[in-house]
Amino acid sequence: MKPTIKDVAKHANVSIATVSRILNHTSVGYSTKTENLVRQAVEELGYRPNAVARGLINNKTQTIGVLFPDVSGMLTSELLYGLEEVAHRCGHSVIFCNTSSSGEKTLDYLQLLSEKRVEGVIFGSSLLTETYYNAITAMNIPAVLVSTKSKKHPLPYVKVDDKDAAYTATAYLIKKGHRRIAMLSGNPDDSVAGKPRIDGYREALLDSGLKGEDSLVFAADGFSYEDGRSLFTQFYETATDVTAVFAASDEMAVGALSTAYQMNVRIPDQLSIIGYDNLKISEMAIPPLTTVEQPLRDMGKKAAELLFEGMETGTPGKSIIMPHRIIERQSVKQLV
Amino acid sequence: MKPTIKDVAKHANVSIATVSRILNHTSVGYSTKTENLVRQAVEELGYRPNAVARGLINNKTQTIGVLFPDVSGMLTSELLYGLEEVAHRCGHSVIFCNTSSSGEKTLDYLQLLSEKRVEGVIFGSSLLTETYYNAITAMNIPAVLVSTKSKKHPLPYVKVDDKDAAYTATAYLIKKGHRRIAMLSGNPDDSVAGKPRIDGYREALLDSGLKGEDSLVFAADGFSYEDGRSLFTQFYETATDVTAVFAASDEMAVGALSTAYQMNVRIPDQLSIIGYDNLKISEMAIPPLTTVEQPLRDMGKKAAELLFEGMETGTPGKSIIMPHRIIERQSVKQLV
Repeated sequence: MKPTIKDVAKHANVSIATVSRILNHTSVGYSTKTENLVRQAVEELGYRPNAVARGLINNKTQTIGVLFPDVSGMLTSELLYGLEEVAHRCGHSVIFCNTSSSGEKTLDYLQLLSEKRVEGVIFGSSLLTETYYNAITAMNIPAVLVSTKSKKHPLPYVKVDDKDAAYTATAYLIKKGHRRIAMLSGNPDDSVAGKPRIDGYREALLDSGLKGEDSLVFAADGFSYEDGRSLFTQFYETATDVTAVFAASDEMAVGALSTAYQMNVRIPDQLSIIGYDNLKISEMAIPPLTTVEQPLRDMGKKAAELLFEGMETGTPGKSIIMPHRIIERQSVKQLV
Repeated sequence: MKPTIKDVAKHANVSIATVSRILNHTSVGYSTKTENLVRQAVEELGYRPNAVARGLINNKTQTIGVLFPDVSGMLTSELLYGLEEVAHRCGHSVIFCNTSSSGEKTLDYLQLLSEKRVEGVIFGSSLLTETYYNAITAMNIPAVLVSTKSKKHPLPYVKVDDKDAAYTATAYLIKKGHRRIAMLSGNPDDSVAGKPRIDGYREALLDSGLKGEDSLVFAADGFSYEDGRSLFTQFYETATDVTAVFAASDEMAVGALSTAYQMNVRIPDQLSIIGYDNLKISEMAIPPLTTVEQPLRDMGKKAAELLFEGMETGTPGKSIIMPHRIIERQSVKQLV
C-alpha cells in the first residue's frame, strides 16, 4: 500500500500538520532538525506527496502565472529573474507564458492559467487591453502589472515613472552643457512608455529655457536595436547642431552607437548619447553607455511581493513607483 | 448548480469527447465552427473547466518543468523562447525554474516539479550530477537535456558539437591567414563546454601543421563578459605575435572587445576576434562580431519536441546534434 502523510508523521514522530508545513515549503514553524527527520521519513517510506491532489482539496495550487511579450528580451529576462526568486522563496511555482504580443495567444494563455487554477497573475510590459482585463477579472484572483500600467483599470503596478526618468536623462545632458538635444523615441501613441518619455524630455528642456522642437524628436514603432539604427540614420541626415541624443531605450542607444560607428561619428567626442534601462548591454557597449537605470530585478521582486500580499490579504496592494537613477559611463561628454 | 462538461456538450450539441478535446487544446479532431459553438456554450453556461481536477483524474497535468541556471542570461532566454513556443503549441504549460547553479535549489525544484506531477523535464546548460540524475529518474517521467549532455547518464540531449564548432571557428581564422592564434576559454575541467572547445581549437591548429601551445590558452571559470575582460588583459600582457583570438563565448568576446577598446587595441586592424554562440550582442558589438552560431531557439524547440515525443511514446527519443555555422561580420581581418 502506498504510504500516506499519516505514515510519514508517525515515522518521524511529529504531527501531520508539521509534515504538511514542511512538504508545502512553508518556511516557518519547524526546525532544521525536524525538517531533516521528516525528509528522511519521506525517503525511507518512499512517500510521494501529490501537490495536484493537495491543490484540489485546499484550492491552493501554489502556482502563479506570468505573461510577457518576449522572454528573450533582456528587459523581460531581468524582471523574470527577480519575480521567480520571490515566488520560489514563497513556495510557489511560476508558469511562464510568452505572448509574442499576440492578442489571441494572450487570451489563450489566460484561459489556460484559469483552468490550471493559478493563484495569481503577473502581466508585464504590454498594454492591458479591455479584453485582457476582463479575462483577468473573470479569474477572480489577484493580478499585478509590472513595467506597465493602466489608467483605466485598477490593477496595482510596479514601474518607474517614465516621465520623471526621461526628465532626469534630459536634465543630465543639459547639466553637462548640451543645448541642442534630440530624442530617439518609441511610439508616441504608446501611453505607457512612448508619450510619457517624450513629455519628460520636453519638460526638462522647457524648464531650462530651451525649446522642445518637434523636429528633434524621431519616433519609431518600438524600442529595438533596429529602431535605434534606423532612427539614428534619419536623425543624422536632418538634424544639425545637435550635440546630444536621448535614446528611449538602451537597445535603441546601442543601435545608435553601431550606426554612428559605421558613419565614423565618434561618440562622445562628436556626439553624446544617453540611454534608458541599464540593461547588461549598456555596460558592454563601446563606449560604455551612460543611461538611466530601471532597477529591473527589484521591480520583478516587488511585483511578486505585491502579488503575494494580494493573495494573502485578499485585497490588492498599492502600486509602487520604483526609483530610477543615472549610471554614468562614457558616452556623454561635458561641454565647456 | 455548477454546470458540468455534460451540460456544455448538450448545449453545443456535440459529444463530451469533442468538448474535452477542445478544452484540452488538442489541435485536431474538430472544426473551427465546432470550436466556436463549444466556446459559446462554455461562456453562456459559465462553465469553468478545472485542469487541476482533470489532471488528477487522467494523470495528465499538461505541464512540463524546465530548469536553467540563469534565466537572465541571453543564451538561456533564447532556448526558453524556443521551447516555450513548442510547449504552448502542444497545449502544455511551462513551469520555469531558475536554479542559480545551486545544487540545493536544483533538488528543491525537482522535488516541487515531482509533487506538481509535471509530465516531463527539460534540464539545461548545467552539468547533470549523479544526484540530479537520481532525482529525475525517481520522477519516472521523460527528461531531455539541452545545451548540455551527460556521458554517464543516458538522457537524450540537444546541443551542437562543441569540439566541432570550436574547430570550425579556429579553422576559419587559419583560413583568413592567421598563424598565431590564442584562445580565451571556459574552465578546462568543464567536460561539456570547457575541454571540448579547447580540444577543437587544438585539433584545428594541428591539422594545419600549427602548434597548439598551452601558453596561448587563457582559461577562466566561466564564460561571462567579466571573464572575457580579465582574460583579455592577461592575454595582452603575455602573448606576443598573436594576430587572432578565439573566444569560447560571445560574452567573453564582447568583454575582450571592451578591454581592447580601453587599451586602444584596434579590432580587427591590430587583432582579430571570433566569438561563439551568436547571441544578439554579437550583432550589436562594435565592430560587429564574427562568431560561430548555435541555433538557440531551434535547440529549444527541438528539446521540447524530443520531450513530447518521449511523453507520447514512452521511450526516450534520440539525441540531436544541431548544426553550427560561421556568421561573418567585421571582427576578423584577412591577412595577406
